This record gives sequence, C-alpha cells and structure tokens, in this order.
Amino acid sequence: MTADRDGNGVARPLLVGVDVGGTKIAVLVVDRDERVIGREVAHTAAGAQDGATEQIAAVIDRTLRSADARIDDVAAIGVGVPGRVDPLTGAVTLAVNLGWSDLPLGEQLESRLGRPCVVENDVRAAAFGLHRRRVVGEVDDLAYLAVGTGVSAGVVLHGRLHRGPRGLAGEIGHVIVDPDGARCACGERGCLETLVSGSAIARLAREALEAGQPTALAEVSNARDGTAGPTAEDVYAAAAAGDRVGMEIAESVGRRLAWAIHLLVMTYDVERVVLGGGVSHAGQTFLRPIDEELDRLRATSELAREQLLPGMAQLLAPGADAGAWGAVSIAEAAHAGTGSGQGRREVGHVRDA
Amino acid sequence: MTADRDGNGVARPLLVGVDVGGTKIAVLVVDRDERVIGREVAHTAAGAQDGATEQIAAVIDRTLRSADARIDDVAAIGVGVPGRVDPLTGAVTLAVNLGWSDLPLGEQLESRLGRPCVVENDVRAAAFGLHRRRVVGEVDDLAYLAVGTGVSAGVVLHGRLHRGPRGLAGEIGHVIVDPDGARCACGERGCLETLVSGSAIARLAREALEAGQPTALAEVSNARDGTAGPTAEDVYAAAAAGDRVGMEIAESVGRRLAWAIHLLVMTYDVERVVLGGGVSHAGQTFLRPIDEELDRLRATSELAREQLLPGMAQLLAPGADAGAWGAVSIAEAAHAGTGSGQGRREVGHVRDA
Repeated sequence: MTADRDGNGVARPLLVGVDVGGTKIAVLVVDRDERVIGREVAHTAAGAQDGATEQIAAVIDRTLRSADARIDDVAAIGVGVPGRVDPLTGAVTLAVNLGWSDLPLGEQLESRLGRPCVVENDVRAAAFGLHRRRVVGEVDDLAYLAVGTGVSAGVVLHGRLHRGPRGLAGEIGHVIVDPDGARCACGERGCLETLVSGSAIARLAREALEAGQPTALAEVSNARDGTAGPTAEDVYAAAAAGDRVGMEIAESVGRRLAWAIHLLVMTYDVERVVLGGGVSHAGQTFLRPIDEELDRLRATSELAREQLLPGMAQLLAPGADAGAWGAVSIAEAAHAGTGSGQGRREVGHVRDA
Repeated sequence: MTADRDGNGVARPLLVGVDVGGTKIAVLVVDRDERVIGREVAHTAAGAQDGATEQIAAVIDRTLRSADARIDDVAAIGVGVPGRVDPLTGAVTLAVNLGWSDLPLGEQLESRLGRPCVVENDVRAAAFGLHRRRVVGEVDDLAYLAVGTGVSAGVVLHGRLHRGPRGLAGEIGHVIVDPDGARCACGERGCLETLVSGSAIARLAREALEAGQPTALAEVSNARDGTAGPTAEDVYAAAAAGDRVGMEIAESVGRRLAWAIHLLVMTYDVERVVLGGGVSHAGQTFLRPIDEELDRLRATSELAREQLLPGMAQLLAPGADAGAWGAVSIAEAAHAGTGSGQGRREVGHVRDA
C-alpha cells in the first residue's frame, strides 16, 4: 500500500472501510500493511437517508477513537452500499433495501469528515477487494456471488472491476431461470432470486409448512411470532440436523446455485467464483449441495469438466468480512491512484480535502 | 485505417477477411477506406484439416485474382473460424463442426501466402468488427448473439473484445435454462442450444410431426428424403405462412432468445445485443417473437423497462456479412497494432513476413 503520505507530505497511515448493511454498519480501520487497527460492527440500520451520513460518520468516529486514531491519520475512506452507486460522484442513486435514492453519500461524508471518500456497490467492492488482496490466489478473472436477501455478482475481468456502462453488470439475481416460477419483487416470474435468495428460502419453507409436510421447521415457526415463519438460517440448521424439508430446500438451492456458477463461468470465463453473503454463512450445509451438483455436471459433460475445474467455486468464511475489506480496498486503490476499474473516475474523485 | 504501408515503406493497401463456415468459405478484399475490392463465396467445405489451409488459400488467391490484386498488396489477413482459437499462435485448438483440432492455421497460411495472418473465433471476430466499424452506433459495450447450428455470443466490453483467460467467454449456448429439457450434445440437459439453435428448431419440428400435429411441415418433410425432416428455415417459412406448428416453434424460440438477450444485458451490461447467424436470416419472422417477449418483459417489470431499452436488440441484415467483415477488422486491428482485446498478443503475432 502507498497510503502513508498525502500530496503535501502529511503522514496519513490509515485506511477506513465501511460496509453498510440493512441492519448493521461495519467499520474497519487498517494500517498500510493491512493490519487491523480498529474494527466495530454497529448493529443498527443507517436509517432514513436524511440521517444516514451522520449515522455512518458516527460509527467511523467511534471506531477511530477506540483505536486511538484520529481522522487526520486517514488517507481515504471506502464505503460499500447495497444498491446502485455512481462511482464518479459517490452518490447512491438507488438502494431499495435501505430506502435511499439519490443520496450524495460520498460528498456528505467528505464534508462531514474532511477526508476523501469513495463509494461503491457493496458486492462489487467485495469482488474488487478479493482480487486486490489476492484472497483466492493469482487470478485476474473472478466473480463474487453474494447470496443474501438478494442475489448479485461482483465481477473482476482482466484485473479490473467490471461495472458496465450503466452499472448493471453482474445483476444475475434477475436472470430468468424458471419462467413458470414464483413472481419476483421485480415483477417478472422465475428470476434466480425467487429460487435461491434468503427470502426465497424462507418462502419455500413456508410453502412446505402450509402444504403440511412434516418438518422440524414447524417448531421453529411456532416458537416465533407465528407469522414470520422460519428464516433461511433456520432452514439450513434443520437441513444440518437431517430434517427432510430442510435438506430438500438446501439441495434445490444448491443445484440452482451450481447452475448460476456455471452461468458465470460460461458468460465471463472467470477462473474463480467466490461464494459469500448471509445465506452462505450456513457453511458446509450450504456448500455441499452446490459441490455435489458441480460434480454431477462434470460427470455428465466433458465441456463442464473442462470449464468447472475442481476448486473453482470457493466458499468465503463468514469472518472473511469481504464487504468491509472490499471497502478498504477501494479506498486504498483510489488513494494510490490505480482506480477500481473505470480509469480516472475514482481517482479524480479522491481529492485531498 | 492505416493499412497502407508496412514497416519498410512498401505500399500494402489491402486487407483480406476470411469467414470459414461448415459449408462455405467467404473472402472479402477491401481497401483502406473499406471499399470492397473483391468478394467471393466458395460453397465448399474447408475439408479435413490436412487440406484445409490450401483450400482457404486457394479461395483467397482466386478472390485476389478476380479483383486484379496481388498478395503483395495485402497488409494482413484475418480469418474467423467456428471453434476455439489461440489468438497468440493463430492455431485452431478445436473446431468440432469442421472436424479440426490443433490446426496451426495462422502459421500455415502465413507460410503459404507470405503475409501476416490473424485467426479468431468467428463470432468473436464478428463482435469485434461490429464495434470497430461502429455498425450499431457509438457504443463500447455490445454483444453479438449468433444463432446458427450452435449458439454463442461475442462480447465487446469497454471497447475491447472479451475472451476470458481460457477463451470461454460468451459460450452462452450451454447455459442451463431448462434442467428437465432435452439432452444437449455437450452431455447436459436443457442447455440454451437445445431450445433455440438451428438443430433444436429442426428437432422441435420433427417432434411435432411425430406427435401427429397437423402442419404444412409434413409436406416439406415428405418432399425431401423423408429422414432429414424440415430445417429451421422450413419452420420459419411455415411460420411466415401462418402454419400453427411453425408459429408455435418461432414463438417459443423468440421467448427463449428474449431471455437470453436479457441475460446478456444483466450479466455484462451491454448496450446493444446484435442478432445474427443462420437462423436469424428468417428476418422478421425470427425477430417479431423476440420483440414481443421483450415488450412483455418491459410491461411486467420496471427493472426490465430500465435495462432493456427499446432498440437495444437489433437484427443484422443477412447481407451485413458480419463474419467476413469481422475478419477484416481483426486483420486491420492487428496491422494497426491496436489489437483486438488481449493487448500485444495479436500485434506480436502480426510480424511482417
């Protein structure tokens, strides 16, 4: 890293990465050798867009204080947000799950904190960070497939983050895979998200319960308020315990995700597909059905054997914190002037305040 | 173009593009202003790989002669081949439909003709040419979706041909879209190719005939040798004439291709999807069901409305000759030293012989 001094020779040894989620704000403060100086996860929503910048800034302040560091020590701040971002301006144009639209987050954070700030879609930032930090080895073409409330992929091609001219690249959650399937939030039927996302898994469990299938998930459902029903986490816990309904859902999700991995490989020719996101935290119960289907594809087709090399799909450990580290990486890249994919945009955006 | 003189100041005003198909070899000779000086389509297979280079060279010779031009006037030759190509060496590593494997075509042509020769997958060369020649306007992100015997896409991202590190990018014909569907030649079930390729369309017509569905295609089938059955061309002709079976197949293919276009847009965020290949020569009968499904997607989903802008999917006129012109473009790019995507590879390969 080269995040030690700014243009005026002022020592700024630290980088800050912020991962903004639906229910938490994670902040990571690292030094130029990627040593963690401070880390804090505030289990609070960033809230309505009026107060969001202040919420985020407050968690950054707190993390720096707890690390005995000052904002003046910070070379740059990276922020990952689950939504659409204009990397040129740092504005969040649309973040449905956060309820934001056209929030000039980058600008507001810069003016509040007095340090340069870059903003990126969280999944893209994570993909960029995985590549920049060589988390899955010396590959220049990789996809980070995030399976959470929604489903999307961040893609690095030829060592550059691929956003696309309209910032839509990697939105594979809405690829139509089951035309007669369930209605998606987007309006279409049978988008990938309707079959493998956290909310899809919860729906599949509810449907099994309503159909009267015998399952331990009935108790989970009863133990709660009764309306919400089991979560994706509950489903994987049941699957791990040998519950038939849980296992069937895990297997169906695994098959579909194996095909999605196959799709990512066929379209982009990536060398690694890294799996992350909330649903993936179920670990081996999540991964096993995916691996089994990838094995089946390899056994069935020579083409698949050639394309889907063993070890190509990798599960990220939950503690890997791809989001916050990705945010650190975009801050570092912007500060170093090497950009995160679209050339000068981010660099131009990082002016020393 | 800058294809006028070589490094020694020798005037070489011409470029040659060769499109090698399963049953024809098309050669285009153009000058530096993209004026067509010579054009020839030999309706003959390139044949077994032993004699293929000579076959291709003979058609080039003939086209040059008919144009009153000499091989010494040629700055560079580009060749598009339906198969896998190593752009670094110009070798065709695998071309299933031609029956070639590990044919050092580029090297052999250079040694036979004495001029630099670049070889590329035909669909990728076409995509590259569409971009370089601005055939669909000032966009730097486009896909060329070729629907013929097989189905694949050539993709230009940020103005660069995207091959992928293993040369698999754009192989969307084997994306699994109907897991319980027909068995594909690759071994899997339900690849896109099993639903929309020329051979799939012929199979669907055969199945309708075997099921005893009343259709004018029965006569087509009888009029031929009886075993081959109707071709994709026959199916579209029947559809154009109002035959129900023909129309149903055309509609099913159109829906699936609309979803494939949607997939290309969602994954790559391309701004244009250009449709070509043998099946597309059915023209409006081919295009109408695609457009109808794209319209339906737009009507159903705000997301689709935003992503699939009207006019985004364009049908290439059969006379547009994307293959041969693409081959011209890779020759031109290699000669100009601007490459077709992977940096110095092609440039390194074009040494003046």
